[in-house]
Amino acid sequence: MSETINKLCIIGTGLMGGSLALALRKSGFCKHITGTGRTEATLKQAKELGVIDDYSLDIAQAVSDSDLIVLCVPVGSMKSVMETIDTSIPDHAVLTDVGSAKQCVIDDAISVLNKSLPRFVPGHPIAGTEKSGAAAAFAELYQERRVILTPTEHSEDAALSLVKKMWLATGALVDVMSAEHHDLVLAGTSHLPHVLAYTLVDCLQSVDDVDEIFKYAAGGFRDFTRIASSDPIMWRDISIKNKKQILNMIERYQAHLLEFRQALENGDAEKIEAIFRRAKKTRDDCCC
Amino acid sequence: MSETINKLCIIGTGLMGGSLALALRKSGFCKHITGTGRTEATLKQAKELGVIDDYSLDIAQAVSDSDLIVLCVPVGSMKSVMETIDTSIPDHAVLTDVGSAKQCVIDDAISVLNKSLPRFVPGHPIAGTEKSGAAAAFAELYQERRVILTPTEHSEDAALSLVKKMWLATGALVDVMSAEHHDLVLAGTSHLPHVLAYTLVDCLQSVDDVDEIFKYAAGGFRDFTRIASSDPIMWRDISIKNKKQILNMIERYQAHLLEFRQALENGDAEKIEAIFRRAKKTRDDCCC
Repeated sequence: MSETINKLCIIGTGLMGGSLALALRKSGFCKHITGTGRTEATLKQAKELGVIDDYSLDIAQAVSDSDLIVLCVPVGSMKSVMETIDTSIPDHAVLTDVGSAKQCVIDDAISVLNKSLPRFVPGHPIAGTEKSGAAAAFAELYQERRVILTPTEHSEDAALSLVKKMWLATGALVDVMSAEHHDLVLAGTSHLPHVLAYTLVDCLQSVDDVDEIFKYAAGGFRDFTRIASSDPIMWRDISIKNKKQILNMIERYQAHLLEFRQALENGDAEKIEAIFRRAKKTRDDCCC
Repeated sequence: MSETINKLCIIGTGLMGGSLALALRKSGFCKHITGTGRTEATLKQAKELGVIDDYSLDIAQAVSDSDLIVLCVPVGSMKSVMETIDTSIPDHAVLTDVGSAKQCVIDDAISVLNKSLPRFVPGHPIAGTEKSGAAAAFAELYQERRVILTPTEHSEDAALSLVKKMWLATGALVDVMSAEHHDLVLAGTSHLPHVLAYTLVDCLQSVDDVDEIFKYAAGGFRDFTRIASSDPIMWRDISIKNKKQILNMIERYQAHLLEFRQALENGDAEKIEAIFRRAKKTRDDCCC
């Protein structure tokens, strides 16, 4: 593949940004990849691992000669990074992000970005592991994974088209939907599960002698709670930023859990079996 | 290893019973393994797969010349199987089970078993997969896994010692504790997680266009909900049979989830971060 753009700038070279850099380098999507961010150690590591070509701690300067800029920072930091780069974004450059909640990033962009707003195309690759950092990055992270783009009413077609091309170059499958729909779907399939897993581990550690209780946890428990090993700061930010839809999902979930509890209190074996059967069928049909 | 016993009888040759048979055959713990149960197709399959030496559909007859009898049936069926075999258990034979809840099985045993009660040693291997059936059985299922034995006040030392020896022969690690403590620990680390996973999938499928919502589920979701693919009948029985401790754990969990919800409603980032950090630390320390 001949190069599509000259210079790519990745703000935040952790797992998501680092893996994107590795995938785009491998596919030949761009000539040069600059990394930038707030922590020199992270950028230095990314450079040493061959994830990026060079780096700068001056975020505004780093974006100033880029063709495509990808914000790979926690959703809680999007606004301040946009403020830092707004006046330095070149007139032709396209901007996108990888935040796990989208309406909040759009709100940030509308309040902060001036000239570049029409070239901002919000995005969210549904991929990741519970690990973080450049050392955990790998070129195949996005292969066969879905990426959701949620263009705003201001987004230009040409910008959407370039961001789509970038993700296709990583091997991902690209869908376009509204930010509101994205936020509901992700609240259900990702944010609520993280809340449930974190809450379960926190609940159990308050029960009893903690070492003892976890000593008897088998493989099912380890799988179930793997996501509770995710980065607490990132998930704090996602929770706050997608508050509306997460609260919506928690409320629905509380009603279902209460229904189960009442069925169990009543010894209603038929109802319990119906819930379990329905769930097993749904999961077997959808996830396997 | 020279054989410890002559004839082992396994009632229920599914994943648990089948894997036990394969492990004990491999270790040379016994000379002969008979399978029995209610469904000929299951027993036939176990025989064809080389899991058992022979089988009988007459459960009482199958146990009548055995030295060690292992009940590998759902906890909801323990009582009726005990009723079927009680008068046929040889005077020297030792009886154990693999049920996931223990106080209920002890209650069944005390109400049903006569002469053989002192030779009954309840047990629970903390192992399994979301699969079921003899075809899913494998000799290594119990290797390095914990097995909890919960002898009753009637259990004889010699019986406990033989059951312990059997599990050690599979490569498992054996612990002894009270049935009540077992039921609490398992309610927390296994039964509650299953309830949460089943309830989550059932909740999500009621939200929206189901195919669409699950289309965006990533690896984390698949891991988190894997246990919702477990056998609904088995888990219905476990729920009913360990009702007291599961309700205890659901109540604690509801309080934790409500606390999280309130923190999110209040936008209390500090509290949310503290919960996530504590959970991540606990999980990383205990499970990895």
